[in-house]
Amino acid sequence: MDIVDHRYDFVDKATYRNGMSRLGTSVNVVTTKAGGQRYGFTASAVCSVSDTPATLLVCINRASSCFHAFEKAHHFCVNTLMPGQEDLSELFGGRMPGRERFALGEWGEGLTGVPVLANASVSFECELTNAVDEATHRVLFGRVIDIRENEENATLLYCMRRYISG
Amino acid sequence: MDIVDHRYDFVDKATYRNGMSRLGTSVNVVTTKAGGQRYGFTASAVCSVSDTPATLLVCINRASSCFHAFEKAHHFCVNTLMPGQEDLSELFGGRMPGRERFALGEWGEGLTGVPVLANASVSFECELTNAVDEATHRVLFGRVIDIRENEENATLLYCMRRYISG
Repeated sequence: MDIVDHRYDFVDKATYRNGMSRLGTSVNVVTTKAGGQRYGFTASAVCSVSDTPATLLVCINRASSCFHAFEKAHHFCVNTLMPGQEDLSELFGGRMPGRERFALGEWGEGLTGVPVLANASVSFECELTNAVDEATHRVLFGRVIDIRENEENATLLYCMRRYISG
Repeated sequence: MDIVDHRYDFVDKATYRNGMSRLGTSVNVVTTKAGGQRYGFTASAVCSVSDTPATLLVCINRASSCFHAFEKAHHFCVNTLMPGQEDLSELFGGRMPGRERFALGEWGEGLTGVPVLANASVSFECELTNAVDEATHRVLFGRVIDIRENEENATLLYCMRRYISG
């Protein structure tokens, strides 16, 4: 594949963030276990890739405080939040150290030992199959080995810098 | 990086699609131009990667009817739809041939000649910087070189297999 030489300036950070704020996304807490310790962070950058085989991707900032755990992890879990779980979104997106984040919410374990949120909208337990660095982030590709769905049909969304119910 | 040997079965297609239906996403028409012809397809798999430099990704099925155009394209545009543009979502997600799709909607041209939807919620014109194949899809990474926002603060979302306003 040919990659073109850059001939255009890129938009600045503020312009990009304003534009991106218009895209609605689910709100997800992505978790893993490393060295017997649980880690997790809030991510909007979760995306379906393929249903054959079931594959999704998650983007993680390589400068994030829990990157070291995800860098070594073979498994991770995408826990998509429900309306009413805004506090979990804020906690896992904030500055609280990793281990203290799990004090909030009811956390179980998946097939591979990764933390699974008991009352998430949906949880996707994944096996890492590929990882690609792009700009400041790493894209983690995961094959989905287990899914747990909430009985209630609802999802927490974030759009235009506010939470809404989907 | 070590990639683990597969020790777990992957979830089946129906289970995966049901789980994924719970993630809310924006609805986007991704466009490009190749050989003087316009191409576009509806994508929910659009995701922010980084703001430094401004980078997003789009997943495209390598079996899709317009893949050949995106395979060769150096530029593409992500046009995020507004509430009321469900007809564009259906048209660009359907079986109508590429050239006939652009009969609906008001289409202009970006800096690089790619089709830009005049009244989209937001349009991200991108320069391709990397492409990675994963399962049935190709992940296109684009540096954002221009952004156009609608004056109205609204976005079309799709969640639980229905359209909602964000």
